[in-house]
Amino acid sequence: MLIEGKNAILEALQNNLTINKLMIQNNLSDNASNQIIKLAKSKGVRIDFVSKDVLDKKTRNRHQGFICETTDFAYFEVDDILNNAKAKNEDPFIVILDGIEDPHNFGAIIRTCECAGVHGIIIPQHRACAVNDTVVKTSAGATANMTIARVNNLNNTIKYLQENGVWVYALETGGKQMTTVNLKGSVAIVVGSEGKGISRLTKENCDDIVTIPLKGKVNSLNASVANAIVVYEIVRQRQ
Amino acid sequence: MLIEGKNAILEALQNNLTINKLMIQNNLSDNASNQIIKLAKSKGVRIDFVSKDVLDKKTRNRHQGFICETTDFAYFEVDDILNNAKAKNEDPFIVILDGIEDPHNFGAIIRTCECAGVHGIIIPQHRACAVNDTVVKTSAGATANMTIARVNNLNNTIKYLQENGVWVYALETGGKQMTTVNLKGSVAIVVGSEGKGISRLTKENCDDIVTIPLKGKVNSLNASVANAIVVYEIVRQRQ
Repeated sequence: MLIEGKNAILEALQNNLTINKLMIQNNLSDNASNQIIKLAKSKGVRIDFVSKDVLDKKTRNRHQGFICETTDFAYFEVDDILNNAKAKNEDPFIVILDGIEDPHNFGAIIRTCECAGVHGIIIPQHRACAVNDTVVKTSAGATANMTIARVNNLNNTIKYLQENGVWVYALETGGKQMTTVNLKGSVAIVVGSEGKGISRLTKENCDDIVTIPLKGKVNSLNASVANAIVVYEIVRQRQ
Repeated sequence: MLIEGKNAILEALQNNLTINKLMIQNNLSDNASNQIIKLAKSKGVRIDFVSKDVLDKKTRNRHQGFICETTDFAYFEVDDILNNAKAKNEDPFIVILDGIEDPHNFGAIIRTCECAGVHGIIIPQHRACAVNDTVVKTSAGATANMTIARVNNLNNTIKYLQENGVWVYALETGGKQMTTVNLKGSVAIVVGSEGKGISRLTKENCDDIVTIPLKGKVNSLNASVANAIVVYEIVRQRQ
């Protein structure tokens, strides 16, 4: 959903609508503009400064130098995920996506997680695919039944989970064979992006690295496939 | 790749090129036409009888009432798959796809199978996606390292595998939990199509049905995801 114009965007920010991206025309410095920029920054919204031409192409109406993309999807908090598990009297079972950008992969992951009984999915606010129409469609509607939290800082969230007794595992090559690791308790698994994998700092913050055995020449699995394999290994161990 | 014209198509048939579909103009009954139709039928090639308009839209050249789509992909025989396993001194590990139509799913399955050390994939000649450009791309190049056989009759192939000591399992709902079934020996797993699952007769020909546990409301996994989960359960059991 596109929102344009100073007042509409100020309102969106003040009402905490989920803003994927805010595009602002270069070199604006009036009071209202400064107020929007300051507020957006304080809320961790990504700002792209662009030329007037770029904005003109996005909309036929009066953007006044401001356009933002919002999503109607209502994200949850990390605590909602932990409470989900508590309500079911189960150890938390969480998937953290570190920068999945392909909406088909993201949708497929949500669908698999819903089928596997995952309590919630955590995604970062920046450099990652948000829940959009393609994601909803690819998930086969699973977005409606999945607790998805979007956080400003994945590393702080990992620390918060660890403080709450959750073991956080990075899914990467070069770690321990996943079937040899005890994944029965409170567990969160971090799945990296299609191209770049898991960021260095995030990997360092994890308690351990688990690995899927690869025996071929291609030597890398699709992100949604890798997620499915490890999620169902956790299901197996928990049974 | 499109081939058109009576002679070119007759040659393609005689040289056993892999023909995905043969389109023939309605109501042709000259000698050459009858020869092509007879030969195509004897080789199990799918024939679509269409109007001249349909053919005219497919090509700007002279089709003479005949167009066919061939693939450059060189399929293997089922015996090549069994020999693959023998050469590695391993029990055969085979995936049979019963009518996967989506090239992205097919490509993803090939990629996963290659990573998991599957000895070969068997697909039916009809009502299924062949190895095309999209499949090759989605597989991340795994098509080059995977033994893919395309057979006329999946049920005959299943019987042939069983005669060769391979246990054939249908992956479907309502069967035994996959983790409770011994999948260590010579094994082939049948994965159904996205919409229709495994055909009734094929399911009846399988030795048993294995099932992935589903705990959500969506209650069905994407075909390539389901394939990945069961293939890696087999990898786990074999380790």
